[in-house]
Amino acid sequence: MEIIKREIIDINKRKFPEEICFKPIGVIYTPFKSLKGIPIQSSMSATKGTIEIFPEYVAGLKDLSGFSHIYCIFFFDMVKLPVPLQSKPFLVNEKKGVFAIRTPFRPNPIGLSILEILDINQNIISVKNVDILDQTPILDIKPYASQYDNIKSTKIGWLKGKIKKRVS
Amino acid sequence: MEIIKREIIDINKRKFPEEICFKPIGVIYTPFKSLKGIPIQSSMSATKGTIEIFPEYVAGLKDLSGFSHIYCIFFFDMVKLPVPLQSKPFLVNEKKGVFAIRTPFRPNPIGLSILEILDINQNIISVKNVDILDQTPILDIKPYASQYDNIKSTKIGWLKGKIKKRVS
Repeated sequence: MEIIKREIIDINKRKFPEEICFKPIGVIYTPFKSLKGIPIQSSMSATKGTIEIFPEYVAGLKDLSGFSHIYCIFFFDMVKLPVPLQSKPFLVNEKKGVFAIRTPFRPNPIGLSILEILDINQNIISVKNVDILDQTPILDIKPYASQYDNIKSTKIGWLKGKIKKRVS
Repeated sequence: MEIIKREIIDINKRKFPEEICFKPIGVIYTPFKSLKGIPIQSSMSATKGTIEIFPEYVAGLKDLSGFSHIYCIFFFDMVKLPVPLQSKPFLVNEKKGVFAIRTPFRPNPIGLSILEILDINQNIISVKNVDILDQTPILDIKPYASQYDNIKSTKIGWLKGKIKKRVS
């Protein structure tokens, strides 16, 4: 990308932030009206939903339609802090550190789902593989590229042998 | 994970947030002291770095060491808002929407890198594939699982044919 001076802070004025604040760029509408019954991973969901990108950000969608999948970064707005730093994931009956599981109950309740793009019409992105509560605030969307994002051989620790079949 | 009542807001009091604020859970130290020369993707970097998880969050690392890779979600703290909604990515000389590229210059400057875990010692995670500026604030860490996160066949729009070889 272009690095434009006015878009970068003065490195001499750089200060480690105590708090970092964002504004939602959109909202996702899904069939999941409560926390019960939401698929635990997007890869295990065939459910469809629609992301509404707020009008002021629509120009940011240019050429996204050529991609089949996106990383959808969102805010688990139902989570009340503080959360325990260890809890039981769905798949095993033993406490794990929050950074070793994907629970929404995280110190920073940030969600990450890989969603398939079905259609983009103006500021509405129709998506598949939804595992997100209805009316969840969206923080960012990035294009997914298997060439970058597929790690061929991974070790998955406690998850090994616990993963159920993916739907897509 | 367990859903504990006290950790969930009352759904009747649920209100769409205007602003969402987080506190860094840690900081990453890397050899990249300026924005010039940072690899454009973690998959194109063999560079090593260390993530310092702040002491109050160390319990959250339990059992992460069994995983080979993490999603590292961080804050591009050098970005000064507002940013243009379209800009030229490194690989082509044509403006694309910010949501169709991975520029740090995003309405919400949230970064996402897939890093290989080399070692975890107390609150220090040694990582590889670093494409992040030194002393960048870390927002979240999630375990990467190819079983969840590898999408076999993807369309990558404007990126097609533009991707250089990955280092790992």
